[in-house]
Amino acid sequence: MAAPERRRGSNAEPQAFVPGHVTGLFSVHPADDPRKAGSRGAGLALSAGVTVTVVPADETTVELDGETVGMEAVTGTLDRLGVSAAVRVESDLPVSAGFGVSGGAALGTALVANERFDLGHTENELVSVAHAAEVEAGTGLGDVVAQARGGVALRYEPGAPGYGELDGISTPPTRIEYVSFGGRSTGEIIGGDVETLTQAGERALAELCDAPTFPQLFVCSRAFAADADLLTPPVEQAIDAVREAGGEAAMAMLGETVIALGDGLTRAGYEPAICEIDRAGARLV
Amino acid sequence: MAAPERRRGSNAEPQAFVPGHVTGLFSVHPADDPRKAGSRGAGLALSAGVTVTVVPADETTVELDGETVGMEAVTGTLDRLGVSAAVRVESDLPVSAGFGVSGGAALGTALVANERFDLGHTENELVSVAHAAEVEAGTGLGDVVAQARGGVALRYEPGAPGYGELDGISTPPTRIEYVSFGGRSTGEIIGGDVETLTQAGERALAELCDAPTFPQLFVCSRAFAADADLLTPPVEQAIDAVREAGGEAAMAMLGETVIALGDGLTRAGYEPAICEIDRAGARLV
Repeated sequence: MAAPERRRGSNAEPQAFVPGHVTGLFSVHPADDPRKAGSRGAGLALSAGVTVTVVPADETTVELDGETVGMEAVTGTLDRLGVSAAVRVESDLPVSAGFGVSGGAALGTALVANERFDLGHTENELVSVAHAAEVEAGTGLGDVVAQARGGVALRYEPGAPGYGELDGISTPPTRIEYVSFGGRSTGEIIGGDVETLTQAGERALAELCDAPTFPQLFVCSRAFAADADLLTPPVEQAIDAVREAGGEAAMAMLGETVIALGDGLTRAGYEPAICEIDRAGARLV
Repeated sequence: MAAPERRRGSNAEPQAFVPGHVTGLFSVHPADDPRKAGSRGAGLALSAGVTVTVVPADETTVELDGETVGMEAVTGTLDRLGVSAAVRVESDLPVSAGFGVSGGAALGTALVANERFDLGHTENELVSVAHAAEVEAGTGLGDVVAQARGGVALRYEPGAPGYGELDGISTPPTRIEYVSFGGRSTGEIIGGDVETLTQAGERALAELCDAPTFPQLFVCSRAFAADADLLTPPVEQAIDAVREAGGEAAMAMLGETVIALGDGLTRAGYEPAICEIDRAGARLV
């Protein structure tokens, strides 16, 4: 009855890697049950992401890149799992810039806590817990389910596994570039009047589903950002520059961040960070 | 409007990698619509798998490791997509030994044909086509959806995306060993009287869902193999030897193949092939 790998895992301080996730277009779908609430939309998982460690502790604390922070999505995840721990998050990506760092931290915490405390939850259950905690924290609506899946996710229906519905756009390994000009509060926007945004998001998703290719995601995301009036001057300028240089770019929702296909930003004269699409989604490492 | 990555992909002969998949336990669920037919069960995706190339041709042909073969799941996939091509499959794994080579070849064909012929299908649509072709060919019931997902998949409901329902067991990176003693016809077994098998499979899946951990998959798979009377002498002997050496092992359905957790087969004196769990599932490479 030995389970040597599992035991080794438990001793060697299990960690999770969760890909960053950039949403290109979305609509907001509230619900009383946070597992049913969420967004419809589309985006891509990045090989840059967060790495999470969880150590049992009497009181829950969260450290992000060495700094103690309040991260409600993480504490809410542990509360829902009925445990307390010191959570350490190392992020390749800036916070509040549209990369799903808070959702990734919550999902990574759920995966590692499950292993560390031998909770015996399935992956869907863990995704559901992290999604609900993230929705309640007001820091995201669709990142967690897309980060769990990996790849280029289409979110047809909002919500956690069992409620939401996902698909994906098949694409070869592709270089992705991004540049961030600053942060933006997701809560402020998704907590405000989202009627115009949601109409624009529904329209853009329908258009993308008519021709579901990876370059088309950029086209529909640009239309969404313009229709929903979310563009800021530096973002608009960078997108225009990439397109003038013959490339594809779009804004990351919700941050002052531009992502480009291939070497689009480099060719436009920017000095972007470089990564790839993550195909595997959130996982223990 | 340039899409440099996509164009480069098309010129550079796109390929797909599809992980092998070992089913440990399953039940059979027929339906007139092959997208609704399938199996419930559980298994794991392997880092050993098949690599598929698709070249447009007037007539469809299939080559497996350099030999021309008939592989209905592959030709059925291309028929459903409305194209014809020369398909080349390179396999790390033996055929008819319980590794899902035919399902992997079908799914890889769907992914590459979509790219090569610019068909514009989503991933769910491509999985659905390959699943239906595999079911109609009679060579598998649940491999395709599990191979598309990757990881350690629980198949709660049978069928293609939109009908089936999947979950997963979260597990750290884990060495997997396997040894094959020969082939076995999936069609012969799933085409025959499957009442006993299906009852055993339902029972084993329920047991696994009560304690969904990776070592427990081996325990429940062994119970299933015994209850469904599928063990052969070399398989039983290898499983016993691994367990006597303190390890976990189970039979791969449907082949004369034994898989073990960690270095279980090595410690029992076998000379197994070694791989890992594939986390990403089927993908263009």
